[in-house]
Amino acid sequence: MKPLTIIKVGGKIVEQPDTLSQLLNDFASIPGSKILVHGGGRSATQMATRLGIETKMIDGRRVTDSEMLQIVTMVYGGLVNKNIVAQLQARGINALGLTGADMNVIRSHRRPAQPIDFGFVGDVDKVDGSRLAELISAGIVPVMSPLTHDGNGSLLNTNADTIAGEVAKAMTPYFDVTLTYCFEKAGVLSDENDDNSVIPHITHNDFLRLKDEGVIQGGMIPKLQNSFDAINAGVSQVVITKADAIGTDAGTKITAN
Amino acid sequence: MKPLTIIKVGGKIVEQPDTLSQLLNDFASIPGSKILVHGGGRSATQMATRLGIETKMIDGRRVTDSEMLQIVTMVYGGLVNKNIVAQLQARGINALGLTGADMNVIRSHRRPAQPIDFGFVGDVDKVDGSRLAELISAGIVPVMSPLTHDGNGSLLNTNADTIAGEVAKAMTPYFDVTLTYCFEKAGVLSDENDDNSVIPHITHNDFLRLKDEGVIQGGMIPKLQNSFDAINAGVSQVVITKADAIGTDAGTKITAN
Repeated sequence: MKPLTIIKVGGKIVEQPDTLSQLLNDFASIPGSKILVHGGGRSATQMATRLGIETKMIDGRRVTDSEMLQIVTMVYGGLVNKNIVAQLQARGINALGLTGADMNVIRSHRRPAQPIDFGFVGDVDKVDGSRLAELISAGIVPVMSPLTHDGNGSLLNTNADTIAGEVAKAMTPYFDVTLTYCFEKAGVLSDENDDNSVIPHITHNDFLRLKDEGVIQGGMIPKLQNSFDAINAGVSQVVITKADAIGTDAGTKITAN
Repeated sequence: MKPLTIIKVGGKIVEQPDTLSQLLNDFASIPGSKILVHGGGRSATQMATRLGIETKMIDGRRVTDSEMLQIVTMVYGGLVNKNIVAQLQARGINALGLTGADMNVIRSHRRPAQPIDFGFVGDVDKVDGSRLAELISAGIVPVMSPLTHDGNGSLLNTNADTIAGEVAKAMTPYFDVTLTYCFEKAGVLSDENDDNSVIPHITHNDFLRLKDEGVIQGGMIPKLQNSFDAINAGVSQVVITKADAIGTDAGTKITAN
């Protein structure tokens, strides 16, 4: 199967003109088929502040009430997404900005209000990999914002890491998929205070051992668990790296064996 | 050729939940292939006010400085467009929201600053009718926001009536095109104070005569001239009607003969 590269970048990178420009240069130079998934949480928070709307977070996750849903719809689906699309077009990339509602590519359901009511937040039910594969075959590069829809007329705010993972899984029948998460550090580190201690390759056995040894701990455990979930679902490899290293061999490669 | 219906609807209709809901019901019930083009100027002005940004108008047209470009990108490309898409999906319509940057469907150039500098406003150079026709053949319903791009990375604010007209012209090699402009009145009136005086059909000869007689005057003259421009470019008919009458025989039909 042909390779497909899926790059997920967070708000920090896409919200600053200089880092965004560098990212889009690097993304444009990746050969072959590709998808970009972006965040935008910091811009949404800034816009909420400018509009006098309080941003509520629980356990580090945004509570999306109806006013915040309007803001993330504007910021993720409009401001961030369409600027990326226009700038990729200027780099010769035939980008198409998408929310999950567009062509019904990602259907979700609103997360239950128990135990914590996060509001208009969607948990993914289905990604239409076939539709995305058709677009890619036609030379289109999907640019996906972290919004899905419930099929009943409501958009739902959905974590960009989750979207990247679910899209990657859905593309495995059509492509040999590499999923790259851009991270603020250079990869998975053996010493969290030393950015030069990147572990270049982690298999599932390595993961179990490094977890036992306490080398991998805290927030990195669920990140790696999610990566192995994607690999179990058919994704060939997951890469955790810095945004400025995409398209290079830097970072941590995560594979089954 | 198969028929294609293009509906252009302004901000007033799409910005109020009740009128939007009715419009989307009516639009969903139109048989066959279709495209929706929407405005959103009133929402953009409201958002500008909430953000403390002044809306400047010259001759009734918005001046789009860089802050206003951000607002229209958010409001047109995100808030208005994506809500329409999600609500059409709930009505079984496989909608895809587009700016001109998405898949490079509408390329424009920034309008010269002389004699009036409208800022980041685009005059349309090219609509990719072939790409839109492919989408429509695949069962997709394009929902187009009034934003285009210059191919150099900048989005440009573009009049929604113009987008509807240019898209209609670009679709004529592929479809038998009817272009419907939703208007605040029931159609072209022979007595502007009587909403029951709709002229049901206007040919180009009728237009010249009615203009001579002073029946058609003021702002209606350029509207009709634009309609005949579309017809000269191959559009089968233009309809001017009220939004709540789309899909019916009401309103004014404009044809060559």
